Amino acid sequence: MPPINETHDPALRSWVGSAQEPGCDFPLQNLPHAVFRRAGSSEPWRGGVAIGDQVLDLAAALASGAFDAASAAAREALADAALPALNALMARSPEDWSALRLALSRALREGAAAQARLAPALVPQAQVEYTVPAHIGDYTDFYTSVHHATNIGRLFRPDQPLMPNYKWVPIGYHGRASTIGVSGQAFARPQGQTLPAGATQPVFGACQRLDYELELGLYIGAGNAPGEPIPIGQAERHLFGVCLLNDWSARDIQAWEYQPLGPFLSKNFATTVSPWVVTLEALAPFRVPFVRPVEDPQPLPYLDDAQQRRAGAIDVQLEVWLETEASRAAGGGAMRLTRTSYRHAYWTPAQLVAHHSVNGCALQPGDLLGTGTLSGPTPGEAGALIELTRGGREPLALPDGSSRTFLRDGDAVILRGWCEAPGAARIGFGECRGTVLPARHPAG
Amino acid sequence: MPPINETHDPALRSWVGSAQEPGCDFPLQNLPHAVFRRAGSSEPWRGGVAIGDQVLDLAAALASGAFDAASAAAREALADAALPALNALMARSPEDWSALRLALSRALREGAAAQARLAPALVPQAQVEYTVPAHIGDYTDFYTSVHHATNIGRLFRPDQPLMPNYKWVPIGYHGRASTIGVSGQAFARPQGQTLPAGATQPVFGACQRLDYELELGLYIGAGNAPGEPIPIGQAERHLFGVCLLNDWSARDIQAWEYQPLGPFLSKNFATTVSPWVVTLEALAPFRVPFVRPVEDPQPLPYLDDAQQRRAGAIDVQLEVWLETEASRAAGGGAMRLTRTSYRHAYWTPAQLVAHHSVNGCALQPGDLLGTGTLSGPTPGEAGALIELTRGGREPLALPDGSSRTFLRDGDAVILRGWCEAPGAARIGFGECRGTVLPARHPAG
Repeated sequence: MPPINETHDPALRSWVGSAQEPGCDFPLQNLPHAVFRRAGSSEPWRGGVAIGDQVLDLAAALASGAFDAASAAAREALADAALPALNALMARSPEDWSALRLALSRALREGAAAQARLAPALVPQAQVEYTVPAHIGDYTDFYTSVHHATNIGRLFRPDQPLMPNYKWVPIGYHGRASTIGVSGQAFARPQGQTLPAGATQPVFGACQRLDYELELGLYIGAGNAPGEPIPIGQAERHLFGVCLLNDWSARDIQAWEYQPLGPFLSKNFATTVSPWVVTLEALAPFRVPFVRPVEDPQPLPYLDDAQQRRAGAIDVQLEVWLETEASRAAGGGAMRLTRTSYRHAYWTPAQLVAHHSVNGCALQPGDLLGTGTLSGPTPGEAGALIELTRGGREPLALPDGSSRTFLRDGDAVILRGWCEAPGAARIGFGECRGTVLPARHPAG
Repeated sequence: MPPINETHDPALRSWVGSAQEPGCDFPLQNLPHAVFRRAGSSEPWRGGVAIGDQVLDLAAALASGAFDAASAAAREALADAALPALNALMARSPEDWSALRLALSRALREGAAAQARLAPALVPQAQVEYTVPAHIGDYTDFYTSVHHATNIGRLFRPDQPLMPNYKWVPIGYHGRASTIGVSGQAFARPQGQTLPAGATQPVFGACQRLDYELELGLYIGAGNAPGEPIPIGQAERHLFGVCLLNDWSARDIQAWEYQPLGPFLSKNFATTVSPWVVTLEALAPFRVPFVRPVEDPQPLPYLDDAQQRRAGAIDVQLEVWLETEASRAAGGGAMRLTRTSYRHAYWTPAQLVAHHSVNGCALQPGDLLGTGTLSGPTPGEAGALIELTRGGREPLALPDGSSRTFLRDGDAVILRGWCEAPGAARIGFGECRGTVLPARHPAG
């Protein structure tokens, strides 16, 4: 776990004034990474760091000479952070990431000598577009909320909501890398086979039970060689940072296809990530104990570690918002559906890394691990419509006068996340937005 | 389906004499692609085509000028085929692939004017090493043998061997791209959690039920845009070629982890592919009708097509051989465990492509689709030890005097495949070999 250091000091202010605005996701204590360019331009993609309502263009920052006096580690990491994909940065050591963070923090502080050279390297966030920030070689989705597993298990398998393996194995499966898109992604409602209630033969058509899933994504830093597991005590050194992630799900397709090999077409049509990757170091002030109910089994040794018990979890506040065509027409904006926290997850990020590699599976820089739907312990903390509406049986009344069991065409789902703790500056994740378009090819 | 043309003429002979040897996998009618370099060298990887016991170095062939008079399509495809990964070649059209095949066939025929310039571009296969021939963005494994699904389903779920969806849905799931290796791959026996028989708590240790799976791999050619399904009638235009594939499986880990999201650590430690990719065009003489038992449901319209019914399947003969430490010590070589054919698959390659993309999932050049274990209808045609030994209950006696329920350390599994048909030259796939090493970290 990265130590708390001067970059976390809540008293620090940036010469970028908007970084001090109340509720700002991107104060000086955050400094998340993304890949961006001016919206609608044909500029090259390059890495940037968020500060207030601006993006610091790292390619321009590098060229400005503002970092010429920084440490060698910081300068080398900066060069990688300026590239059109962050894999090379992610492949570096936590010490390099930390050196870069310190250099950026110092250069963006009030009174920094670098201000004159860096000010021209700022681009307003309102004027940029983003892309997926790394080449994602493999995408794995886990299932770390015991509340979600129980809620959804009850719908799919009323006789056995929680499988006997759940409290021993951090359950995961491989997802689709090619359809991961960045916030702003819009996708056609998927089509496929479903088995209508009471029918013995499936029908083909547009998904009728389209859902979102509130998740976080974890980007792998340095990888491991095939056959060489990453021990739990080293696992966080292999985690670069965290983003918001929406694992769109076609529940009717899923129910029919998922036995015996798991979800496939019900998930792989689209997955949306936030553009900003919040580093693990920025999250250091928000680490909390990993708490198991006493009646639950303790993790097997390869998943257990004193440091994990002490502060393995992360308290990220999470929200899901829905914007409908009606709410947009009325100028009413988005309506909040859920608020919860990542602290309720049954398995920590380090446990996911240790488990994923224990069989020798090679993780690579830029690989993405989804946490699985992050539902909290109370019904209102559910991270998917299938849970909020109890399988579609109890429609959710919305402030705009409409109701939802599942998503309608035109609906936009917005995920938000932030961290707050006593003695720490609030930091945020920005947003992760995706929009449902009508099925492109009517069912035939 | 590619038409039969002059490149398939069984009377054609190559000026490379070994191409005419009986049983040769690589006559002039095959011309499969690989990526290679001289073994143990630091030469750059580049594309090659097999002819007899030689590799035609396509980078050298291009530089030789031997193809300067070929069609523009052939020359452009050749330049892509010479690269260190075949993705750019795969992204081309079937017409380009066909133009390249025709140009290679003509240049390697007896009497070809190109012989003098191409002879120096030959490298003996015995002197080269191979790498995975494409950057595999996503790897999907299907489950297309109804015999395998029934055999293994009986072991995992005696009450319901074949799920109700099996005969409607080409069941598939996402696998791990990062651990796909080329023939010759050796990997440490995986470790993980398993639930001993009768136990209520899992144990951690080295896999005790390590198995192979006999599969074919299908490389995607041109991709599809997100949201744009590939119609069944166009699906084969998006398939570049076929390889052998071994989907190594840890059965004890699988049994404990796979509910409810499918196989994960039980599969993702290693997958081995053959170096040679046999083009779909080379397989044209071996296409056979796709036959459904009359009592089975017909495929839904998006999976159905007259051309598929007429010749959607491919009759590839398949074998599994086992080489043990004892058989090597005795100089006895490998022992055949299985012989079957791909013609028994329940779903055709085109159906896999149409299904995979019907929800809008984007396929990309170089993506790999595994067929799933290709067990035939009789017990001796089973493509995995778990089937041959009925779940490990009936050990298999080997000619070397030993027996196997599952794989032992030092075992090498070799897959072989070839096609034969009246009026056609026999073509082969070479071999796909992988070796089990001891678990690297003893269970703790």
